[in-house]
Amino acid sequence: MLTRIDHVGIACRDLTAKIAFYTSTFGLTVSSLEVNEEQGVREVMLHVADGPAGASYLQLLEPLRPDTPVGRFLDRRGEGVHHIGYGVADITAALAAIGASGVRLIDERPRHGSMGAAIAFLHPADIGGVLTELVEAAAR
Amino acid sequence: MLTRIDHVGIACRDLTAKIAFYTSTFGLTVSSLEVNEEQGVREVMLHVADGPAGASYLQLLEPLRPDTPVGRFLDRRGEGVHHIGYGVADITAALAAIGASGVRLIDERPRHGSMGAAIAFLHPADIGGVLTELVEAAAR
Repeated sequence: MLTRIDHVGIACRDLTAKIAFYTSTFGLTVSSLEVNEEQGVREVMLHVADGPAGASYLQLLEPLRPDTPVGRFLDRRGEGVHHIGYGVADITAALAAIGASGVRLIDERPRHGSMGAAIAFLHPADIGGVLTELVEAAAR
Repeated sequence: MLTRIDHVGIACRDLTAKIAFYTSTFGLTVSSLEVNEEQGVREVMLHVADGPAGASYLQLLEPLRPDTPVGRFLDRRGEGVHHIGYGVADITAALAAIGASGVRLIDERPRHGSMGAAIAFLHPADIGGVLTELVEAAAR
């Protein structure tokens, strides 16, 4: 069902500084920079690798305001890993199968993610404390 | 410098239960199960995907004792993402370059990781709260 690690999402307070750090220290390159008002974040995808099922990224997330999910995460936990996003070929089918297994779906239906992807989050309390995202990448 | 997301390491209290969960819910398969006395963990690599630079895994970590790094992590933070491991082609060269950039190295020299890999950890305080591991996979 999972085709790849699509990305690891990292919450940070200063997106510009973190982009500079990851590009200079690790040689990663910026694939996209977007504002997602619905999720309350400014986000960057840093390209790590290509693979047969699609690319893998490091995603940096900076909250637009304190009263957003990532803003509250930073208040509670500080900077660090926020979630893992896995690639799937068919997000609607994956959500149906995972929901049927008893894992609670934060998103019953896919919504818009980075770079045109369809995404949905699964409840971390049912996945050992890991906020888990499914990603069906946009057609290339 | 980074060739892939080698793995995401997840701290858990009950390795057997988490293996059952990830294999049944997401269809992942077990690539290895090892005890690493030096790190004080019992660990499993769940295969997610293959790629040109090597495979990507989900790594589940269960502490052997409470007084271990992962045991203390569970006490402090609860279950969840513990670290990210990135593939590198030459871990000695990567450590030298990253150390020269000012990031503190937890491991000045590589040590033994899962499945025969040479690994080294970088200090999370210098990487926005993310415990970061470099992985040079064993020759295939």
